[in-house]
Amino acid sequence: MDPRDVLGLLEDVRAGRLAPGEAAHRLATLPFEDLGFARLDHHRALRKGFPEVVFGGGKTPDQIATLVERITSRGQNALVTRASREAAAAVVARVPSAAYHETARALTARVADPEPLKGGVAVVCAGTSDIPVAEEAAITAEFHGAVVERIQDVGVAGLHRLLDRAGAIRQADVVIVVAGMEGALPSVVGGLVEAPVIAVPTSVGYGAAFQGLAALLAMLNSCAPGVAVVNIDNGFGAGYLAATILRRRPA
Amino acid sequence: MDPRDVLGLLEDVRAGRLAPGEAAHRLATLPFEDLGFARLDHHRALRKGFPEVVFGGGKTPDQIATLVERITSRGQNALVTRASREAAAAVVARVPSAAYHETARALTARVADPEPLKGGVAVVCAGTSDIPVAEEAAITAEFHGAVVERIQDVGVAGLHRLLDRAGAIRQADVVIVVAGMEGALPSVVGGLVEAPVIAVPTSVGYGAAFQGLAALLAMLNSCAPGVAVVNIDNGFGAGYLAATILRRRPA
Amino acid sequence: MDPRDVLGLLEDVRAGRLAPGEAAHRLATLPFEDLGFARLDHHRALRKGFPEVVFGGGKTPDQIATLVERITSRGQNALVTRASREAAAAVVARVPSAAYHETARALTARVADPEPLKGGVAVVCAGTSDIPVAEEAAITAEFHGAVVERIQDVGVAGLHRLLDRAGAIRQADVVIVVAGMEGALPSVVGGLVEAPVIAVPTSVGYGAAFQGLAALLAMLNSCAPGVAVVNIDNGFGAGYLAATILRRRPA
Amino acid sequence: MDPRDVLGLLEDVRAGRLAPGEAAHRLATLPFEDLGFARLDHHRALRKGFPEVVFGGGKTPDQIATLVERITSRGQNALVTRASREAAAAVVARVPSAAYHETARALTARVADPEPLKGGVAVVCAGTSDIPVAEEAAITAEFHGAVVERIQDVGVAGLHRLLDRAGAIRQADVVIVVAGMEGALPSVVGGLVEAPVIAVPTSVGYGAAFQGLAALLAMLNSCAPGVAVVNIDNGFGAGYLAATILRRRPA
Amino acid sequence: MDPRDVLGLLEDVRAGRLAPGEAAHRLATLPFEDLGFARLDHHRALRKGFPEVVFGGGKTPDQIATLVERITSRGQNALVTRASREAAAAVVARVPSAAYHETARALTARVADPEPLKGGVAVVCAGTSDIPVAEEAAITAEFHGAVVERIQDVGVAGLHRLLDRAGAIRQADVVIVVAGMEGALPSVVGGLVEAPVIAVPTSVGYGAAFQGLAALLAMLNSCAPGVAVVNIDNGFGAGYLAATILRRRPA
Amino acid sequence: MDPRDVLGLLEDVRAGRLAPGEAAHRLATLPFEDLGFARLDHHRALRKGFPEVVFGGGKTPDQIATLVERITSRGQNALVTRASREAAAAVVARVPSAAYHETARALTARVADPEPLKGGVAVVCAGTSDIPVAEEAAITAEFHGAVVERIQDVGVAGLHRLLDRAGAIRQADVVIVVAGMEGALPSVVGGLVEAPVIAVPTSVGYGAAFQGLAALLAMLNSCAPGVAVVNIDNGFGAGYLAATILRRRPA
Amino acid sequence: MDPRDVLGLLEDVRAGRLAPGEAAHRLATLPFEDLGFARLDHHRALRKGFPEVVFGGGKTPDQIATLVERITSRGQNALVTRASREAAAAVVARVPSAAYHETARALTARVADPEPLKGGVAVVCAGTSDIPVAEEAAITAEFHGAVVERIQDVGVAGLHRLLDRAGAIRQADVVIVVAGMEGALPSVVGGLVEAPVIAVPTSVGYGAAFQGLAALLAMLNSCAPGVAVVNIDNGFGAGYLAATILRRRPA
Amino acid sequence: MDPRDVLGLLEDVRAGRLAPGEAAHRLATLPFEDLGFARLDHHRALRKGFPEVVFGGGKTPDQIATLVERITSRGQNALVTRASREAAAAVVARVPSAAYHETARALTARVADPEPLKGGVAVVCAGTSDIPVAEEAAITAEFHGAVVERIQDVGVAGLHRLLDRAGAIRQADVVIVVAGMEGALPSVVGGLVEAPVIAVPTSVGYGAAFQGLAALLAMLNSCAPGVAVVNIDNGFGAGYLAATILRRRPA
Repeated sequence: MDPRDVLGLLEDVRAGRLAPGEAAHRLATLPFEDLGFARLDHHRALRKGFPEVVFGGGKTPDQIATLVERITSRGQNALVTRASREAAAAVVARVPSAAYHETARALTARVADPEPLKGGVAVVCAGTSDIPVAEEAAITAEFHGAVVERIQDVGVAGLHRLLDRAGAIRQADVVIVVAGMEGALPSVVGGLVEAPVIAVPTSVGYGAAFQGLAALLAMLNSCAPGVAVVNIDNGFGAGYLAATILRRRPA
Repeated sequence: MDPRDVLGLLEDVRAGRLAPGEAAHRLATLPFEDLGFARLDHHRALRKGFPEVVFGGGKTPDQIATLVERITSRGQNALVTRASREAAAAVVARVPSAAYHETARALTARVADPEPLKGGVAVVCAGTSDIPVAEEAAITAEFHGAVVERIQDVGVAGLHRLLDRAGAIRQADVVIVVAGMEGALPSVVGGLVEAPVIAVPTSVGYGAAFQGLAALLAMLNSCAPGVAVVNIDNGFGAGYLAATILRRRPA
Repeated sequence: MDPRDVLGLLEDVRAGRLAPGEAAHRLATLPFEDLGFARLDHHRALRKGFPEVVFGGGKTPDQIATLVERITSRGQNALVTRASREAAAAVVARVPSAAYHETARALTARVADPEPLKGGVAVVCAGTSDIPVAEEAAITAEFHGAVVERIQDVGVAGLHRLLDRAGAIRQADVVIVVAGMEGALPSVVGGLVEAPVIAVPTSVGYGAAFQGLAALLAMLNSCAPGVAVVNIDNGFGAGYLAATILRRRPA
Repeated sequence: MDPRDVLGLLEDVRAGRLAPGEAAHRLATLPFEDLGFARLDHHRALRKGFPEVVFGGGKTPDQIATLVERITSRGQNALVTRASREAAAAVVARVPSAAYHETARALTARVADPEPLKGGVAVVCAGTSDIPVAEEAAITAEFHGAVVERIQDVGVAGLHRLLDRAGAIRQADVVIVVAGMEGALPSVVGGLVEAPVIAVPTSVGYGAAFQGLAALLAMLNSCAPGVAVVNIDNGFGAGYLAATILRRRPA
Repeated sequence: MDPRDVLGLLEDVRAGRLAPGEAAHRLATLPFEDLGFARLDHHRALRKGFPEVVFGGGKTPDQIATLVERITSRGQNALVTRASREAAAAVVARVPSAAYHETARALTARVADPEPLKGGVAVVCAGTSDIPVAEEAAITAEFHGAVVERIQDVGVAGLHRLLDRAGAIRQADVVIVVAGMEGALPSVVGGLVEAPVIAVPTSVGYGAAFQGLAALLAMLNSCAPGVAVVNIDNGFGAGYLAATILRRRPA
Repeated sequence: MDPRDVLGLLEDVRAGRLAPGEAAHRLATLPFEDLGFARLDHHRALRKGFPEVVFGGGKTPDQIATLVERITSRGQNALVTRASREAAAAVVARVPSAAYHETARALTARVADPEPLKGGVAVVCAGTSDIPVAEEAAITAEFHGAVVERIQDVGVAGLHRLLDRAGAIRQADVVIVVAGMEGALPSVVGGLVEAPVIAVPTSVGYGAAFQGLAALLAMLNSCAPGVAVVNIDNGFGAGYLAATILRRRPA
Repeated sequence: MDPRDVLGLLEDVRAGRLAPGEAAHRLATLPFEDLGFARLDHHRALRKGFPEVVFGGGKTPDQIATLVERITSRGQNALVTRASREAAAAVVARVPSAAYHETARALTARVADPEPLKGGVAVVCAGTSDIPVAEEAAITAEFHGAVVERIQDVGVAGLHRLLDRAGAIRQADVVIVVAGMEGALPSVVGGLVEAPVIAVPTSVGYGAAFQGLAALLAMLNSCAPGVAVVNIDNGFGAGYLAATILRRRPA
Repeated sequence: MDPRDVLGLLEDVRAGRLAPGEAAHRLATLPFEDLGFARLDHHRALRKGFPEVVFGGGKTPDQIATLVERITSRGQNALVTRASREAAAAVVARVPSAAYHETARALTARVADPEPLKGGVAVVCAGTSDIPVAEEAAITAEFHGAVVERIQDVGVAGLHRLLDRAGAIRQADVVIVVAGMEGALPSVVGGLVEAPVIAVPTSVGYGAAFQGLAALLAMLNSCAPGVAVVNIDNGFGAGYLAATILRRRPA
């Protein structure tokens, strides 16, 4: 029941087609979404072409393919994260327009162009092992309409490579920094740019890296202000947040 | 040495006033900031009235007062975080325009109006014990030019109070959510709004709260996308990041 | 706005006293509590004499006294946890009927008899150092109308004392077990009784007790089924949950 | 030796059929269970049809089948948790009435109707990945005689779905809440209901979820009173405790 | 009720002075200690002069003095651990024979000679900061009747001092090794001796010592077999266990 | 170089057959074992029939077989812990007298009777899943000459089974208690016996058991004195320590 | 652009072949490495024969072979750490001079002799399970030109073996100590030598070893000064640091 | 007994002034230090002017003063770490030449010039709060004869300040890097220099810094090779290790 439905109901009351008691009952029992509240839930779907996201971890290829088919058949774009190669094959067999991004373990199915976002995103990562998480962030941001600049292999122990790319990083409106091991890169980048920095710790490393804990703690304690952190290996979360930041920018 | 100085040097070379060898030596030994690189560091100071921030923890009242005096005498605004009442008294004695925000343990000294930021910030907090951290976030964002809406006492165990304020929260362009104990509020707020959410865990709680660890972990694992996290009790970091996000918005 | 108000609104629409558009707007903007939802929040207060609880930690004696005065002046009972001796004195000066339970660090002010609960609660604790937490649980349960049997000093290393009291423990309808150090008591008691067991780890112990972490983990891993755990030192939570369990029992 | 046996022994003494010294020896050496104490241990078995529970983890299909056969041949119902598909096949081959609940990884064999419990249990869970644990809780509660209402996919980031089901949740006499990731759902549900809430953290999540630690800590720190916590993924424990709570309700 | 009482009861039954039903009731309701079980609890007290131990932490000087007075008035020796100087003064005022061991923070009151134990105990410690814990162990062992050899300042980084004392250490029948920081001493000593080694980690150290955690983990992982560990700073536990080991030695 | 060799050297000096400078050099460079010090290392091997222990984890079947062959060919007994079934087959093929203890994952090869130890060991364990670790302890103690009483399935949630066996446990001179999950059994047993208790936490459990951490912490914090702890799953360590305790007992 | 290029540019300016504005632009836009800064990055490569290091973990055999081929074709030596047997085969097929060190899981390809380093390195390890990490350290140090003395199986529980080798250890200019379990060896060695000690914790051990955490903490808390620590299992890091220390020694 | 004493003893034997049996006895019973072994322990003292170090934490001013007096009266230099102002006053009152370094909380008493070390040490620190630990490192290194260059306030978020000082840092033969919070500085410095880097995490920071744990983990996981780590806040350890590295450099 959308706002127009409420209005229709009230018109019916005024016109005597519906008794007030019955109308009160309908209003009392309609689900919250009928009161405008639920627009929260479906508001994304209401915009044409805005993507729905499926977390692929723990779902079978068939389940994933069914979900993507359902979403795209409604005219919406779909993004699947943590998608295996098998899941990708199952989807493509049913939704031929779908594309698999192997490095990012992500799958996208576009049936409409996303609303382009204003401003650009830089996705910066430290080592080659961090690239899958960085790619998940980049694919996610692009899928939501952002233009993404990928800047790779700029670890803090080789500053000149990082400084060579500093210009490109500074032009971005949101900077995503992906790093494992000691997780120092967001602090260094945070000192170089004015834009907000989203730090993504990765589980890359061994021993006292403790599957990303070392990088996570480092990033939370960054001496550069303007840095916030998402979960370990959560490239999707970073890409989504970047898109969220850009989406709010006025025309 | 600014770009014009480099040009002047080169002109001197062309004019024969400076030998190439000597010029090469000067270029090689000039500090990096003279090459434009250091503008990174001072760029904030170059804008009139943009604040400098002093971390008050571990500094004596006299040290803090000296720093604030020096900053304001250059025509810049100053913000002191983690400022004790004693530090505030010491500053006000020397910089009468300074104001102490006791709840936030923050001190501001304004000698110029900050450049107003486009868009508003909502600072949402769960319990009364979280208010000091929330206030630090709010004061910081305001100090950098943001308009801040404070929304307090909207814990997840009393949803109707939160939902009553949902409209106000949804109007903000950036939402800061401050919570201790189980740290559930950012997930709930993240589901209600489209704007980016900055989550601040606080050390409020006891026992298995482990000084904010429980809330920190909860926030990092938020099931709502679009949420990033700063350090425990880091209200300043959240306020600064919110201002950073708004600052990048085009006119 | 209660249901009758909605009906009145609809009657106004039918009678032509209110335009459908205006009525739709009113329905859309009325606070959630007007839809019956908020009764959740105030339902406790609506029952005569049902207590309100104030967490005394971090509040000044004066703040606590004001809160208690306000609650009792509305005809409701008040419970203050983590109340210092100073806070107790401040309350008693303004609410003479208030009583301080020093061991439990709890303060109660009763202006009405609580609705008696059906069934009894046993509060069992291992060592004398655990008694403050056990008393907080007992006082809380009593305040909500439960009859409480206190059983103290029945640690697992002296089984015969525990077995001597097994009869009394088994008669309770809910058993709260409070223990620090190795936290073994809930497992042993859980094997002796049929009633639900609420385990409360305490921060009693030293070294590898890690402020209650050892007891907490032990209780979560209890080999006796029918045991659930609350936060470290959270006597209030256990007492409240026990009352909640009894409250649901049919007449 | 049950109480009547003790009496018989004493009768024999009075009648001169047994010397006091010999009787004293028999009393001193009889196992504790002969003194009524051991009824603790077998009291469940003494009620007709009350189930026995087998923890299937680490047992071979054959071991499990043997145990189930033995229990059911005594006329008792059996519940096997953490039962693999292979174990289920082995049981069904020998106890044809057994049923396998694949999602819950649980197996039930009923030879008698359980004594129905008074009151209902709601099993609420946040995400689809939490369903196996929730099902283990539900199956366990049902097996002990409870009526269970399953409420799924009501995560805190989509409040309206949760609020839509709030009525059903509030009607339950015990509420089990199952959640992974940030573990926020018990706090929100705890604020919506009057009934006791049993929170079950799951190991669902990644990175800083630390296999359920984040959810566990969040639940222990719930700001909603009336919430207690069982071990990570311990759906059985929650279902059993819920049945225990209901079992104590007077007729 | 001791065994003779049971016999008397049975004699009464045979003699017709007591009805079997009444006798059965008495047997069923007598406390477990009357069945010989409780001798477990009091067996120590039954031996003349065997000490009782009071954990002084968290008790007031007056409480401690009362306890010691009561114990010694029964003719038993008393040991108080974690006793402050104030507690010692309070005890000595009422039990003049009591002696305070300041380094060990222990207080002993002897009214009878302890039964001498067979064999000797070596208490070995690494650094001067570990001496209080080592002394608590030594005083405890002596109080229970052991002969103790104290060997101090033999850290692993100065092997020759340790090797100089190796002969004395090897003569002991039980070796207690006390160490903080890296906790390496028990492994080295464990390789030097044939006797059982009780390792006591201390909270001595800073930074990554984490209040004794580093030493505790090291000791649990000792590469020398024959080593067991007690809680951090638990000198009492080590001394008591050493006495327990010696006590079991046949004459 | 044994003491007689030193004397010979000195005789050579006196007789002028060896220059003092050369003699000083020889003394300075002779290995420590020549000074009697190294007897420490070989003293075990010097006793006929005393076993050597091989940690089988991470060694190939062939490596293990070679080691056992070498040991037994010297006339010594050998014990292999953490031995796979494959390793056992490889050993038996070369040392036919070897026996594999599958539950304990231990392999013993006896070529001589061990020196019998005075006194007995009880190995007590809580659940069936703890039996492999308990068996490793029992086999180890037996291998070193102890008489072992195995007492299984006496968890704390079923006290009467434990109490039924209390007599047997109390007769032992050393008690090994093996438990996973909440690790409560050593505290209960520690209260029942006078003998030293060696507690072995196992990695049995799930969720917040954290692979034995919960049981380990519980045991370190045991409220029963006279309890010491070895590493998680370290049945060998417990059995060896028990033998060490008994070995020191005088004839 | 090397310094001579800058001079050439300036000469061009003086000669009028280049306009000052154009020269300023070139200076402003040249990459940092052209200013001498980037020599940091390539300085190793500039020395003939100095090795490049490839972290083999997570790379395919083909990727590794390509990298080694590229490095050696430039006339440089290559070291691959964490190289599988398959990777080794792939490399040798394309770079026949490459050698695989299976124990160390390291692969070296030498096309030039390394510059010999002054001074020697001792690599000391405690147990046979630690040898792979020790070998990685040794191979790494040798690859960088150091002479390495390997000293194995000198655990702290068998001091005489360690003391037998003390002379060899003391002759080294840098000592690497590798140990798992309780990690005590660096403290003991640190007390024996004057040279700097690099401690490498290994993940060898079980239970409370927590994959090397116990050893890591022990080493960080070493009571012997002059000890520093690298990451768990990081033999490469230790070998590299040892070479770095020796490299700085003056001729 | 120093080597000359052994020689004298042997001369006595040759001369017939001492019987071989008596000489053998003396050799057997002399402490290990008399055999040259103990030179390890006193070797520092044997060099004129080489300092002795006193850990001041937990010692009284009087104890410290006594120790310093004793050391200096033997003609040796003394260093006291963690010395309070009161301790400093007590020392200066008795050893007037002593000097207190308040920032470093260190006290030095020099009665002889230390042997100058070859090569220089750079002590680099990130923030002003890290200076006390950095100063402890610098004072320690200087006390052992090193020339120290202090480089402060070069955090990674302000790279140009760090790069400005890169030349000075690169000239050092050992670099100590001190940092709290995210601990990123050693990785960045490690990429800039060829010298060995000793990283010192500090407890500076709050919240998820966990008293230096975040910085410690980051440093252990440094992506720059050639970095080793000492304990949190262990400036002394870093300074001592730096001196150890330089001491081994050949003339």
